[in-house]
Amino acid sequence: MSEKYMLHIVIYQKTKPFSTKHNLYIPQLYNTLVQHNTKNMGFTFFLLILTITSVVASPNPFNQIHLLMPHSGSAGHKHSNLDCLSWRLAVETNNLQKWKQVPEECETYIGHYMLGEQYRKDVDLVTEEAYEYAKGLNITKDGKDLWVFDIDETTLSNLPYYASDAVAFGAIPYNATLFNEWVEEAAAPAIPGALKLYKQLIELGFKIVFLTGTEEAYAEARSKNMKDVGYTTWEKIIYKGVSDGSGVVYKQAKRKSLEEVGYRIRGNMGDQWSDLLGTNPGDRTFKVPDPMYYIG
Amino acid sequence: MSEKYMLHIVIYQKTKPFSTKHNLYIPQLYNTLVQHNTKNMGFTFFLLILTITSVVASPNPFNQIHLLMPHSGSAGHKHSNLDCLSWRLAVETNNLQKWKQVPEECETYIGHYMLGEQYRKDVDLVTEEAYEYAKGLNITKDGKDLWVFDIDETTLSNLPYYASDAVAFGAIPYNATLFNEWVEEAAAPAIPGALKLYKQLIELGFKIVFLTGTEEAYAEARSKNMKDVGYTTWEKIIYKGVSDGSGVVYKQAKRKSLEEVGYRIRGNMGDQWSDLLGTNPGDRTFKVPDPMYYIG
Repeated sequence: MSEKYMLHIVIYQKTKPFSTKHNLYIPQLYNTLVQHNTKNMGFTFFLLILTITSVVASPNPFNQIHLLMPHSGSAGHKHSNLDCLSWRLAVETNNLQKWKQVPEECETYIGHYMLGEQYRKDVDLVTEEAYEYAKGLNITKDGKDLWVFDIDETTLSNLPYYASDAVAFGAIPYNATLFNEWVEEAAAPAIPGALKLYKQLIELGFKIVFLTGTEEAYAEARSKNMKDVGYTTWEKIIYKGVSDGSGVVYKQAKRKSLEEVGYRIRGNMGDQWSDLLGTNPGDRTFKVPDPMYYIG
Repeated sequence: MSEKYMLHIVIYQKTKPFSTKHNLYIPQLYNTLVQHNTKNMGFTFFLLILTITSVVASPNPFNQIHLLMPHSGSAGHKHSNLDCLSWRLAVETNNLQKWKQVPEECETYIGHYMLGEQYRKDVDLVTEEAYEYAKGLNITKDGKDLWVFDIDETTLSNLPYYASDAVAFGAIPYNATLFNEWVEEAAAPAIPGALKLYKQLIELGFKIVFLTGTEEAYAEARSKNMKDVGYTTWEKIIYKGVSDGSGVVYKQAKRKSLEEVGYRIRGNMGDQWSDLLGTNPGDRTFKVPDPMYYIG
């Protein structure tokens, strides 16, 4: 087995009362490490990089905001030196729209994020907060209080597919044929935080509606997949018809139909802003992370 | 001058095709370092901590999603072991609402974030994206195309105040008296990305409206502050009256009034979701980061 390591060193520098975190992102060195890797290296190959910058502290705490000052030499080029953390935050806050794929330079970052602990923690905090909100509603249990869940990257994870070389966490353009083959496998795992919330909501007396962009042609595989991983019951599961329009148009129309027949959408959770925007959004919406693709 | 350092080491472990990033947050050791600091230590005091975890790779790439599996021993306690990165993401995506102050355990994290490079980069990406959007509008220049900016933490930074011991980046409850004294000083710096965007928008022919939660009593100090740092001209600057209601109610009412007299709000930028939600939000909204406080 071949093992490759990189040491990423962050230096905390403590002046009074605060100082700056120097966070060294060094993809070039990472690539160098990968290139120089040899087999059976075990735990013996380390690279340590230290960069230490001194900040002279003055008695005035206002000197601490020096990093608000403009950088010198800014070229004004669009998203030059793209910072992948900033890119992800801008995606999650809907500041970036209609993007086609993950920027090539962020494939590694997004891959690490999705496969690492942080994505999991980010989802869990949102689903926990949703449960706290739902608990506080004290619903009437007349069978009309709904929770609407999206499916892809909200209740089921397509990460096994997105982690494949042919997809590269969204850094390679979307291929509908390949994706639909994956959907037909009915092998997507549940997202643990969403599954836990789903069970809690049913316990509280909510009815569950799954509202998905998955096309009707894949309904059987998808429903099987949902049941297999623990989403065993639902009030409705709504698949997208061929003439249902864009994500946001389709989803708001279906939510409107639900409310017109007397349901109350108390909560609405999705990984895309198009799950949560438009009319009849629900009393409160919850955005779970998804930096891998954009559906408008 | 007293210097204190901490080495924070992150290990990237590369299996095929991907693996996990182990990110070690060790506030206890940080505290230990601070306690043992002595004067004039210069650059000589370092602590290195390495933790290496091995993951056995199998030929099946699907084994890479192991971190989607539930943690064992989850206590089910609300936000136990709060992850501050998750907390900040949940704030920025409006998943956490009506929170009163930064969690005590996140003060250090938020402080480092706000004073470090990441906050600056996060703002810059949003303001650059806003400019790309604005450029593409090809406005008519009839003087009716508006860009609405919030002020606090959108165009002016109160970070010098928030970094003080009495505020602790929002981890200490809001004190209106102290904050208003700071506003009266008229010493808030411009946020560089916003100031650059402001100048670009004027160049493109937009009219600028500043719509702020600052009360009318502080109008003089605020307007002076704005001019001093480079926001030298505006179509209107709207301060909040004593009977204007909550943030979201006040702001949507003022935006509605602007559109009723013929202005077109082409863009709307704020650090709070209450700047961007409700009626007449504008053709496109932009959320800039602010993990220090919540205004509903």
